[in-house]
Amino acid sequence: MALEQVSSTKTFGGFQKVFKHKSSELQCDMNFAVYVPPQAEKGKVPVLYWLSGLTCTEQNFITKAGAQRTASELGVLLVAPDTSPRACGIEGEDDSYDFGTGAGFYIDATEDKWKTNYRMYSYITKELPSLIQSNFPILPDKQSVFGHSMGGHGALICFLKNPGFYKSVSAFAPICNPMQGQWGQKAFTGYIGSNKEAWKEYDATELVKKYQGPPPDILIDQGLGDEFYPSQLLPENFVEACRSQKVPVTLRLQEGYNHSYYFIASFMEDHIRHHARYLNALKQQD
Amino acid sequence: MALEQVSSTKTFGGFQKVFKHKSSELQCDMNFAVYVPPQAEKGKVPVLYWLSGLTCTEQNFITKAGAQRTASELGVLLVAPDTSPRACGIEGEDDSYDFGTGAGFYIDATEDKWKTNYRMYSYITKELPSLIQSNFPILPDKQSVFGHSMGGHGALICFLKNPGFYKSVSAFAPICNPMQGQWGQKAFTGYIGSNKEAWKEYDATELVKKYQGPPPDILIDQGLGDEFYPSQLLPENFVEACRSQKVPVTLRLQEGYNHSYYFIASFMEDHIRHHARYLNALKQQD
Repeated sequence: MALEQVSSTKTFGGFQKVFKHKSSELQCDMNFAVYVPPQAEKGKVPVLYWLSGLTCTEQNFITKAGAQRTASELGVLLVAPDTSPRACGIEGEDDSYDFGTGAGFYIDATEDKWKTNYRMYSYITKELPSLIQSNFPILPDKQSVFGHSMGGHGALICFLKNPGFYKSVSAFAPICNPMQGQWGQKAFTGYIGSNKEAWKEYDATELVKKYQGPPPDILIDQGLGDEFYPSQLLPENFVEACRSQKVPVTLRLQEGYNHSYYFIASFMEDHIRHHARYLNALKQQD
Repeated sequence: MALEQVSSTKTFGGFQKVFKHKSSELQCDMNFAVYVPPQAEKGKVPVLYWLSGLTCTEQNFITKAGAQRTASELGVLLVAPDTSPRACGIEGEDDSYDFGTGAGFYIDATEDKWKTNYRMYSYITKELPSLIQSNFPILPDKQSVFGHSMGGHGALICFLKNPGFYKSVSAFAPICNPMQGQWGQKAFTGYIGSNKEAWKEYDATELVKKYQGPPPDILIDQGLGDEFYPSQLLPENFVEACRSQKVPVTLRLQEGYNHSYYFIASFMEDHIRHHARYLNALKQQD
C-alpha cells in the first residue's frame, strides 16, 4: 500500500500531485492524481473523486479541466484515478479504444480473461478511498464523486450502489444507460458476459429504479453538439427512471457544446460548487 | 491570405478556433488559435496576443492555461500563434528543442540558412495582426501582448520595439536578457550571427534602456521554484534597466511555483485583468 510520489507541482496555492502504487485489486501498477488544496495544510478537507472517460489517463483531467482553481477556493481535495489497469499482458488489451486499456468501465469483470485485473469498480469504491484516507488529510465522511462520459457512468453507478458513501454525484455527458448503447454493450459483454441480469448491476438507469438511499439532487450537463448524444449516452432514459423513483435530478442541455474538455472546463466550477454544498465546503454560500 | 478553419469548439460561451494559412513571411503553412468571446457576436472587441515558449505549438496555451474563462467574462479575443515555422526542410531544423522547430524566438533571422523562413518577429508584429484585423471583429487600436518564457521574451520585445502598437504587456517567467543566457545566445548566434550589436535589437533589457513610448505598468510573474530561474531568465536585469529608465514594472516572485502551465494557469486571470484595464475591457472595474 506504499505510495510513490511521481510529481508535485504548485498550482493555485496548493499542489497537483501524481502517485504510483501497486494495486491489490488490479494486480498492476497504477497512477492516480491528487490536488491538495491550501486548506489541507491546516486541517482536514472534503474529497471529490473524478472519473475520466475512454482513452484517458490521470493526466487529462488535471491538465485540461481547470478544476484546481475552484477546488483551491473552496478547500476540496480532488482525486483523479486512471481509467483501467495497464500493461497486464492480456491478449488483445490494447486492440480497441473502447475496451481494455483506457476503458475499464468502472466494473468488476467476471469473464476469465479479464477478471484478475479488470476490477475498477472495487478499486474506485474500496482500495482507492482507503489509500486516500490513509495518506491525505481528508474528512472520511465527506466524499463525493463526478466524472465524464464513461467516467460519468462510473460516478453514477458508484453513487447508486453505495447509498450514503458519497454525499453527492454529478456528471458531464455520462453514459447513462450502457445496456442500450454500443460502448456499454461491448464492455459488458467482454467483461461480464452475456447475462443481461448481471449487466443491470452496472447500469445507472437500471440501478436508480431500485435506489433507496438519501436523495441529493443529481446534476448532469450534456452538450447538444456532442457527437455521442443521444445514442451512446441516453441521459433522458436516466432522467425518466429518476422521476419514476422521485430521485431529484437536473439535466442541463447545453447548446453547441461537444464531448471535449472544452465543454467540461466551461461548467467545472458549477459542478464543484454543487458538490461543495453537500460537503459543507462552501462556507461563504451557506 | 485565405484562412482554413481547422476546428471550432464551444467553450465558456464563445468559440475556441484553430486556423491554418500559408504565411508569406514564413514561407510555410502555419496554425494559429483564436478564442472568440461571446461579446464578439454583438460588436468589436479588444485582442490579446499570447506568445508561447520553447517546444510549444498553438495547442499548449488553449488546452492548459485556462484563459478562456476570463476572456469570456471580459470580452477579450485571444490569439495564440505557433512558435516557429514548421517543416521547412532546413537541414538540422528538428535537431534541438531550443533551436529551429518550436524555437523561432520571435526574431527575424539574417543568417542565410534561416533567413527565408525564420521571420517570427515580422510574422507576429505584421502579418498576423493584419490577418486578425481582416478576419475577426476586433478593435484595431486595442491590442496587447503577453507570453511565457521564450514567448515572454517575444512579448516584451514586440511591445518595446513598437511603441503604442500594443496597449500593455505582461509575461510569465520571460527570458528577459537573452544575450546573457544560454538559450538566447544559442538562438541569436544561429539566427543572426555573432554581431552582438545586432543581438541588442532583440534583447528586452537592452531595448528598454532606449524605450521612449507610453509607459503602462509591465507585469511579470516569476516562480521561485522555476528550474530556469535565474540563469536563463534574468528578470532582475530587466527590472533594473526599467527602473533606470523610469519605466514602471512589477515583478512578482511567486514562492514554490515552477516553469509549467500549472504556474501560468494560477495567475492567468490576474494577467488578463491587467490587460483589460489598458484595453478598456473591464467595465465592471473602471
